[in-house]
Amino acid sequence: MVLAYDGSDFCGWQIQARERTVQGVVEDALLELHGYPVRVKAAGRTDSGVHARGQVINFETDSTIPDDRFARALNSRMARDVRALSAEEVASDFHSRYSARRRIYKYYILPAECSDPFSRRFCLTVKRSLDIRTLNGFAARIVGSHDFTTFAAAGDQSKSKIRDIHAAGFYPEGRFVVFRIVGNAFLWRMVRSLTGTMLYMAAACRRPAYMTELLERQDRSLAGHTAPAKGLALYKVLYDE
Amino acid sequence: MVLAYDGSDFCGWQIQARERTVQGVVEDALLELHGYPVRVKAAGRTDSGVHARGQVINFETDSTIPDDRFARALNSRMARDVRALSAEEVASDFHSRYSARRRIYKYYILPAECSDPFSRRFCLTVKRSLDIRTLNGFAARIVGSHDFTTFAAAGDQSKSKIRDIHAAGFYPEGRFVVFRIVGNAFLWRMVRSLTGTMLYMAAACRRPAYMTELLERQDRSLAGHTAPAKGLALYKVLYDE
Repeated sequence: MVLAYDGSDFCGWQIQARERTVQGVVEDALLELHGYPVRVKAAGRTDSGVHARGQVINFETDSTIPDDRFARALNSRMARDVRALSAEEVASDFHSRYSARRRIYKYYILPAECSDPFSRRFCLTVKRSLDIRTLNGFAARIVGSHDFTTFAAAGDQSKSKIRDIHAAGFYPEGRFVVFRIVGNAFLWRMVRSLTGTMLYMAAACRRPAYMTELLERQDRSLAGHTAPAKGLALYKVLYDE
Repeated sequence: MVLAYDGSDFCGWQIQARERTVQGVVEDALLELHGYPVRVKAAGRTDSGVHARGQVINFETDSTIPDDRFARALNSRMARDVRALSAEEVASDFHSRYSARRRIYKYYILPAECSDPFSRRFCLTVKRSLDIRTLNGFAARIVGSHDFTTFAAAGDQSKSKIRDIHAAGFYPEGRFVVFRIVGNAFLWRMVRSLTGTMLYMAAACRRPAYMTELLERQDRSLAGHTAPAKGLALYKVLYDE
C-alpha cells in the first residue's frame, strides 16, 4: 500500500505509547477493519515532522476487500492528514523495507521572498538566495558508494555506514528549490544532515572538495547542520518488478 | 499592503475580543512597529476559515520604513500563517474596501481520487466526478448584474443585494477544479453559497435555467448549500490606476 502523509502533527512513523504516530493511526484503522490487530511494516521509518508522498507499507490480511477498494476503506477510518493512495496484493515474501531497492527523498526549500502561508508546513524558508550551480557542485560529491558516518545522527544503529547514492541534485520546482536524492538506503537523519550542511557550505563559500573531505574524515562533529524535518518528504520507494 | 494568509487557524479577518483574527495579528504587529495603535482597513472581510492570496489592506503611518522593507518588517513580527507580500504608499483618500473596483475569489475543489494530505486545508474534496461543462452552464447564468438575495447569508447587512459579476467559471488547475468569480463586490457568503449550490445542481442534474430561476425568485431558502470555508480564497483585488 502506498501512503502520503503530512508529518506535521505526527511523532514520526514508528508506533510509540502515548504519542500520535502514522503507524499508530494506520494500525488503528486496520484493527477497525479486521477486528483484530494487524501489524504493518514501512519502507522508511520517517522521523517526527517528516512528510511522505510515497511511503510503502505492507501487512498480512485475510480481508476480502478487493485491492482497488482497500485504500478507500482505510481512508474512511483515518484522519485526513494521512491518506492511502493505492493498494495491491504482493508475494508473501515481500517486505516493504527489506525488498526496497531505491528510496527517493525530496527536500523543499523556499527563498523567503517567495514565501507564502500555504507552504510553510512543507518547506524550509531561507533568507539567502540559493545558487543551484554551487549547491550541485557539493551534491555531485555525494553520488557513489560512501561511508556516511559524518552525516549520521548520534543514535544511528546501522552496523555499516556505507550507502550507495545513485543521484543527488538541486533543481527548481515552481517557486521551490528541491534537493532530490536517490539511494539504496539512508542513515538516520542523513538526508537532513546532508541538506543542512550543503546549505551551510554554500553560505560559507566552501569549495566542492570540502564535501569529499567531510565524507572521508568520517566524523559526525564536522557536519551537524541538520535541516529541519518539515522540508523533507519520502517521495518514492522503488522495488524490483 | 497585500497580504496572504492561511485562514485555517483564524476566526476570520475582523477583530474580535478573545478570538484570533487576521486583523488582530496584523494590528498587533503594527502596534509593536509604531509604539501606538494603528487601525487597518481590508478590501474583503473574509470569514472564519477563508484564505487570502491577495487581500489588500491600508492604514495611516508616520513610519520612515521604506515601502520595499515594510512587508519584511511586519513579517518578522507576525505568525507564519499570515504574510505581507508587498507594500506601497497610496493617496490619503485611498480606501482598500471602498476604492476596490473588482474582487476575484477562487474556490478550490479536489476530486477525492486526487486527494492528498497536503492540500486538505485549502480545498473541498468531493467524491463525485465533476463535469466542468455542466458547471459552466450554471456559472454563465451568474454573469451580469443581478439581485443575489437567494445567495446571501441570513446576516447580510447590505441595503442593495444587487452585484455586478464580470466573470464566473470553472476550470482545471493542476489536480484541482477551480471556480473563479470576478465581481464588483459580494454579499455575505455569496461565493460559498453559489459554489455549493452549483455543485448540488450538478449532482441533482439540474438544467442551467434553474440558476436563473433561483436568482429571480430572490429567496434565500432556495439555495442554502453553502460550500465550506476552507476551499475559498480571496485571490486578488483590483483598483483604478
